[in-house]
Amino acid sequence: LNVSFLQELLSSIAEQSRALLPKSLFGADAGDDVEELARALVSGRGEASGVAIARELLDRYARLDAAERLRFFTFLATEMRPDAARVTGAAQAHLDDPSDVTLAKLQKALESPRVEFFRRLNLAPGATAEIVAMRGDLLRVPPSDPALAAVDADLRRLFYVWFNRGFLVLRRIDWNTPAAILEKIIRYEAVHEIQGWDDLRRRLDPTDRRCFAFFHPSLVDEPLVFVEVALMRDMPDAIGQVLEEPHAELIGKSPTTAVFYSISNCQEGLKGITFGNFLLKQVVEELARDKPSLKNFVTLSPVPQFTAWLERTAADADGEAVATEVRALLEVMRRADWPEGASDTEYAEIETGLMALAAHYFLNAKSPDGRPVDPVARFHLGNGARLDRINFLADTSEKSMREACGLMVNYRYEPKEIERNHEAYANEGVVASSRAVRSLLKLKSKARAVVAGAPQQPALPAPEPEKAET
Amino acid sequence: LNVSFLQELLSSIAEQSRALLPKSLFGADAGDDVEELARALVSGRGEASGVAIARELLDRYARLDAAERLRFFTFLATEMRPDAARVTGAAQAHLDDPSDVTLAKLQKALESPRVEFFRRLNLAPGATAEIVAMRGDLLRVPPSDPALAAVDADLRRLFYVWFNRGFLVLRRIDWNTPAAILEKIIRYEAVHEIQGWDDLRRRLDPTDRRCFAFFHPSLVDEPLVFVEVALMRDMPDAIGQVLEEPHAELIGKSPTTAVFYSISNCQEGLKGITFGNFLLKQVVEELARDKPSLKNFVTLSPVPQFTAWLERTAADADGEAVATEVRALLEVMRRADWPEGASDTEYAEIETGLMALAAHYFLNAKSPDGRPVDPVARFHLGNGARLDRINFLADTSEKSMREACGLMVNYRYEPKEIERNHEAYANEGVVASSRAVRSLLKLKSKARAVVAGAPQQPALPAPEPEKAET
Amino acid sequence: LNVSFLQELLSSIAEQSRALLPKSLFGADAGDDVEELARALVSGRGEASGVAIARELLDRYARLDAAERLRFFTFLATEMRPDAARVTGAAQAHLDDPSDVTLAKLQKALESPRVEFFRRLNLAPGATAEIVAMRGDLLRVPPSDPALAAVDADLRRLFYVWFNRGFLVLRRIDWNTPAAILEKIIRYEAVHEIQGWDDLRRRLDPTDRRCFAFFHPSLVDEPLVFVEVALMRDMPDAIGQVLEEPHAELIGKSPTTAVFYSISNCQEGLKGITFGNFLLKQVVEELARDKPSLKNFVTLSPVPQFTAWLERTAADADGEAVATEVRALLEVMRRADWPEGASDTEYAEIETGLMALAAHYFLNAKSPDGRPVDPVARFHLGNGARLDRINFLADTSEKSMREACGLMVNYRYEPKEIERNHEAYANEGVVASSRAVRSLLKLKSKARAVVAGAPQQPALPAPEPEKAET
Amino acid sequence: LNVSFLQELLSSIAEQSRALLPKSLFGADAGDDVEELARALVSGRGEASGVAIARELLDRYARLDAAERLRFFTFLATEMRPDAARVTGAAQAHLDDPSDVTLAKLQKALESPRVEFFRRLNLAPGATAEIVAMRGDLLRVPPSDPALAAVDADLRRLFYVWFNRGFLVLRRIDWNTPAAILEKIIRYEAVHEIQGWDDLRRRLDPTDRRCFAFFHPSLVDEPLVFVEVALMRDMPDAIGQVLEEPHAELIGKSPTTAVFYSISNCQEGLKGITFGNFLLKQVVEELARDKPSLKNFVTLSPVPQFTAWLERTAADADGEAVATEVRALLEVMRRADWPEGASDTEYAEIETGLMALAAHYFLNAKSPDGRPVDPVARFHLGNGARLDRINFLADTSEKSMREACGLMVNYRYEPKEIERNHEAYANEGVVASSRAVRSLLKLKSKARAVVAGAPQQPALPAPEPEKAET
Repeated sequence: LNVSFLQELLSSIAEQSRALLPKSLFGADAGDDVEELARALVSGRGEASGVAIARELLDRYARLDAAERLRFFTFLATEMRPDAARVTGAAQAHLDDPSDVTLAKLQKALESPRVEFFRRLNLAPGATAEIVAMRGDLLRVPPSDPALAAVDADLRRLFYVWFNRGFLVLRRIDWNTPAAILEKIIRYEAVHEIQGWDDLRRRLDPTDRRCFAFFHPSLVDEPLVFVEVALMRDMPDAIGQVLEEPHAELIGKSPTTAVFYSISNCQEGLKGITFGNFLLKQVVEELARDKPSLKNFVTLSPVPQFTAWLERTAADADGEAVATEVRALLEVMRRADWPEGASDTEYAEIETGLMALAAHYFLNAKSPDGRPVDPVARFHLGNGARLDRINFLADTSEKSMREACGLMVNYRYEPKEIERNHEAYANEGVVASSRAVRSLLKLKSKARAVVAGAPQQPALPAPEPEKAET
Repeated sequence: LNVSFLQELLSSIAEQSRALLPKSLFGADAGDDVEELARALVSGRGEASGVAIARELLDRYARLDAAERLRFFTFLATEMRPDAARVTGAAQAHLDDPSDVTLAKLQKALESPRVEFFRRLNLAPGATAEIVAMRGDLLRVPPSDPALAAVDADLRRLFYVWFNRGFLVLRRIDWNTPAAILEKIIRYEAVHEIQGWDDLRRRLDPTDRRCFAFFHPSLVDEPLVFVEVALMRDMPDAIGQVLEEPHAELIGKSPTTAVFYSISNCQEGLKGITFGNFLLKQVVEELARDKPSLKNFVTLSPVPQFTAWLERTAADADGEAVATEVRALLEVMRRADWPEGASDTEYAEIETGLMALAAHYFLNAKSPDGRPVDPVARFHLGNGARLDRINFLADTSEKSMREACGLMVNYRYEPKEIERNHEAYANEGVVASSRAVRSLLKLKSKARAVVAGAPQQPALPAPEPEKAET
Repeated sequence: LNVSFLQELLSSIAEQSRALLPKSLFGADAGDDVEELARALVSGRGEASGVAIARELLDRYARLDAAERLRFFTFLATEMRPDAARVTGAAQAHLDDPSDVTLAKLQKALESPRVEFFRRLNLAPGATAEIVAMRGDLLRVPPSDPALAAVDADLRRLFYVWFNRGFLVLRRIDWNTPAAILEKIIRYEAVHEIQGWDDLRRRLDPTDRRCFAFFHPSLVDEPLVFVEVALMRDMPDAIGQVLEEPHAELIGKSPTTAVFYSISNCQEGLKGITFGNFLLKQVVEELARDKPSLKNFVTLSPVPQFTAWLERTAADADGEAVATEVRALLEVMRRADWPEGASDTEYAEIETGLMALAAHYFLNAKSPDGRPVDPVARFHLGNGARLDRINFLADTSEKSMREACGLMVNYRYEPKEIERNHEAYANEGVVASSRAVRSLLKLKSKARAVVAGAPQQPALPAPEPEKAET
Repeated sequence: LNVSFLQELLSSIAEQSRALLPKSLFGADAGDDVEELARALVSGRGEASGVAIARELLDRYARLDAAERLRFFTFLATEMRPDAARVTGAAQAHLDDPSDVTLAKLQKALESPRVEFFRRLNLAPGATAEIVAMRGDLLRVPPSDPALAAVDADLRRLFYVWFNRGFLVLRRIDWNTPAAILEKIIRYEAVHEIQGWDDLRRRLDPTDRRCFAFFHPSLVDEPLVFVEVALMRDMPDAIGQVLEEPHAELIGKSPTTAVFYSISNCQEGLKGITFGNFLLKQVVEELARDKPSLKNFVTLSPVPQFTAWLERTAADADGEAVATEVRALLEVMRRADWPEGASDTEYAEIETGLMALAAHYFLNAKSPDGRPVDPVARFHLGNGARLDRINFLADTSEKSMREACGLMVNYRYEPKEIERNHEAYANEGVVASSRAVRSLLKLKSKARAVVAGAPQQPALPAPEPEKAET
């Protein structure tokens, strides 16, 4: 409850700190120049007055427009880089005499002054969130200048250490959580949009719902990543079973199945720093401890790239027979009356064909890096989960019909398998899957016959999972 | 109050996590081998099961004896180092084509696998404190093997980022602080020993006393550094005025002077990561905000190297005249009846001589690096403080008489001067001092005459201030 | 943040406590009889197993319908009353010998077993809120049976002690408050309805808004009474200045005026236990301490009985001349085009007439108890406030136009006057008012002439201010 | 951790409140008269300015000496009593017409203005603790004036409601508890004195130790009652097994037996308001939930009145034969070499005789009220415990040898029996006991023969258990 109190305290301290310091630094004569302040911060003045300089710099940065920010990033890229002569000197010295001593000197020479700059910037109260947001700004810059990549690499390296999972705190999000945090849950939910406070309450408050988030001690009311969980009796095969009220099935019974139906990253500026895997594992442990009746830990996950893959397949000149079949399926599914107006035969054919294609999509279709095409699959398989079930017409929302032909899948986290699955996937790209999923490959259908002969598909360049990871 | 609850919770989670994982990792067949676990931790298994492996490794490490720990450090030094061939390759590539791209590759090649090892080790609940303690163990190893220095450098670099001042939390220590923390204050006090709980209470509980500490969110009940403060009406010239009861002078009056009379670092494993300067500055701000009547922020500090310097001076063959005088002073002060039994003349001569020598010690005597000989002076001057007064027979405890001939000094933190003093000291080695101190150099005394002609003294190799910084 | 955790803990404890006790008490053979449980609770069994019996009784009470609850209240009224014979005996003994000893015995004889019943009922975890709700139920019973009044009197007496202001905790309500509390603020606001979460945020989150509530330690997330405050530069004369965005006037300036624009009681079951006065006074102190620039503490309050009083005046046969004038005013104001379609002359006449009548309403019209007719006026004047200004067409909402002809008033809390005003009001019924309000009585207008000769008005029986106190 | 912060805040608020109020109330011209302030507090001024008047009154009360306090209590006794004429009038009216209405009026007339006085006194921040201390002062007054008993009765009645168990909070006391509370544990321990902080740590910190206390939300760092618990494998038969280190027996095993070895009330001013029974029951529930391996809940309790009873028996002229035997036992036990120097025969005779006498003391010796002579027995039997075992030479400390001939007893809390035992004891005075204790009555020994024929003993007037209840 005293978060706001703390914030007031922090800013009053910074205020004070500013008041105690030479006016020259902050007046008009300082040129309103973030670059000047950045130079001061890494100089001896920064050692003496770092907190005040950092605070001032961040305040001025906040008032910069996009072009000015780009200029500042370019400044960081060009002026705050390792000294070129010192690097080449040290590299040469190490090549001449490859000892521990020359190695240490080479490491030293390569340390970027930017890292010290960001470290000192973090002296200001509340700075961590602002530096994370700064990287968010940087990532939105069109990558025209390759030198900016080095700035991003330094920030990413720093965040990788700052946001070490050992420093993160798991907190349950429920109806007693401060509104300031809850409104961020509404805003950041990326998988199944939250329609305002009443919808939020339905997801947090019932006794068969859970939500957990990771926080960093220096980002007091900013969740980093959160997961929404439904406690159920059976693994659901459609999202409606999770989102719609009432959750009647549990009355008088203990839940057996924890369903992770949405995972959302919250901070753009932390892109590439992974928390989702740690979050899922710790939540599995929390739930297993808290509710011993829980035996199954599964997801109900979207399949965001499936339609795109189908369309590439349909357009593939090399596999004309397959392509023809897929085009036939797509044609039916694009009809305005699909699925309500489909005949029983059509429905059965589409179901059989689509399930077989989906099995192929998950088990055989690979990106050039040898991983599955689907980003959500890459996330869960990489965590050691197993592809447990593919569900036909599991989400008939406009978005899901468009992106995934309405499919959703369940991934299963079986504690005893996690390490084995992870290693087989990491080392050999093996996709852990249930017998049921694998048997879909053998479906007696035209599509199946076609697919069996299909060559490996060209794939999209593997996108990094960003907001929605489930 | 729920610290212990949290600890129980954390360990129960780790327990659980272990239970959920393959037994093979923890059984006798794993060979009780921390090295094996370390290899597993940085491998793909560490990605899947990092928390459990890290916890197990730390538990086993805790049971190793000193020799086994040394062996483990050597393992880290030799096996977990950057790949030599890759480094030389990348260095050569950069020399051949010094571009942003080859620079980034060289940086990558130099990243020590040890850093990733320690980062993953920190996945275990409560690990941060244990990794800090691990460095404490490493620092106690006699530095026979130079390769170990690289291990220390990696840890130090990591801690420098983990313990960024922006992540530290200032907390007031008072009589409502949990006993588990207070007993550490008793244990870690390095300047004026705390004689048990009653003495502690005298230092914390009266309304004219303050104590503040920095904590890191992941080291819940472990202070990193703390400072003890007395709120007074005048700058004290002897430690007795601070430590002895009753503190009567304040009754019905507002304090004007905050006296920092003890600063102690708490964690050996954080040696070289500086907090004391940030602590002092933030405490000055806190106090100024909380008690607007406070106008003076001063220390009452020991002079731990003064006698040693006097003795080196006395033994200095190059300055025989000076040496003779100093020897005469030392002779009197080594008498069992000093100072009680000294004649008025003797007393006056010693005082005049010693004060002049002390002024010289602070203002003129320099280490080879051009900094003052005295480690406490280096700390406060480096923070931008001014040497304000030298106090004769200010601490007559056995230790102080032995190390400092009973001298103590006041450093003054004048907010408006701090940055200027810091820069003058950092750039040119200027020792900021009051007119009063400087005038001691002109004392009409034999010692003074002698000293004026003294060559610059050879000095001890500058020791890093460790436990006692004041 | 751990409220829900505590609640789970508490209920798990009660669960346990039940499990440890004889099954007989809770089985079918106990007859599902709250009366039986009530008897057990005040018996020796209640001494041994009070927590479990109380919990069970409250759970069963919660499942009773209205008729069964009435039956239970009747049981408390008739069976749990002081013993009649013992009372008359002790009364006679005291009359025979009016000593300290017989007085004490008489007091003892009069102690109602109901009070002990409720006290033991409060042993159950979380019971306090349920007992408060129980009185809410009782107050909704039509007062057919006068014996129930004694039950209410006992509960009220008990709550008067339980909810002693010394036990209440003032907490600021802001955007960091848990949603479970905020939704109650939305629900309980009785003066200016809160239109959902966005509206709530506008009232809590801007830096020029404050909201404070009293809580009781045993009713964790149930506010008892809360006040909404706007920090402004001037005393507002219309509610739109407070509720509408943007609050631009403060940019770059310090607020000088705290405006209490809504006070709401939250717990029906605590009717008659006053908190509002203490809340206002403590909030004045908090604000004065926190924002030294605040010099004025005023309300912007509704006038809920004004139209009703006007209508009684219009119908008053004794003052036909006055009544005629008032009827003329009412006629204009009931026109659909009022006030937009009124001519300038009409508008001016209505304003002059209404302001004069309002001054009369506040200063002269009295209930039979000699207090002002207006319940909000009674509340603020009783607290020592001064009637500072009457504002014409200050709230043109449908409700306000209907109840108050659109009037609102400012009461002013002048710390130096509060005690004097309170005493003059309490002892002599003096209505503290500003010169401006009093001068309205002298308005040169037909209505004024008429009003001056009006006899004292008959008044509604003075209703207790319930939900809305401002 | 923020207790002290809260206290500062509270006092700053009271300070402010004082500053805002008329100076007249607090200046010299107010006559430094607590009685004047008391009258003001219950008057209309108290309604307006209660918080400030109450704070001032308490501050002045704190400076009164014992005689002045007595005078103030007498003032409360004589001036703040129910109006005699009104009481007799209402009593007569009720006798004339014994209706609900006259009953309510009589109750009203009997309400003591003192209760309202104390209620308003409690408006001041922090007042509750001071009012409790005020009753402590009152209880120390020699009961010369019977009118003071009515003041005490009012306070006791008020505290009975304020300190309703439903408002108390159970908190674990451990090594993470603030020192301000821990030093009170040291001070208030009444059964087995705590020898400073190291001893305290031995009782709180080991994993097989527990300590729990009840707190009231308005007495932040003042425990009301606390219990010390040892988790063991067997029911101990001597205090040394509990207090001495090391507690080796538990290594690698789960505890089965919770031993309550010390219960201490902390607040003299709450004498007669019982918490100990609720504390024990809740701690049993907490422990059963937290450590499912615990099956036995027992005490190891002193027998503080045993020697006194033996001596009365020895002096009893009516039972000369018995008296002679007891005198013989006492004579041996008073020898300086007892028990070390006793012969085996003597030792055996003393043991047999004393155990038989002790069984008689607990099972047969009764106070005039029909309850056991022993205050500790009355406490535990009244709670529904069973007398389980009497232990010979279980505490050989000087105090225990003197008061109890070294005996200690175990009471057992068997959840299934508690209600039955409590009722049998409450209704018929039945002492629940184990077969082993009852069989001691049949010991074949001279003493036994003698005791069997002994008449019921005259007993001390039953003292209320005060500090030490175990």
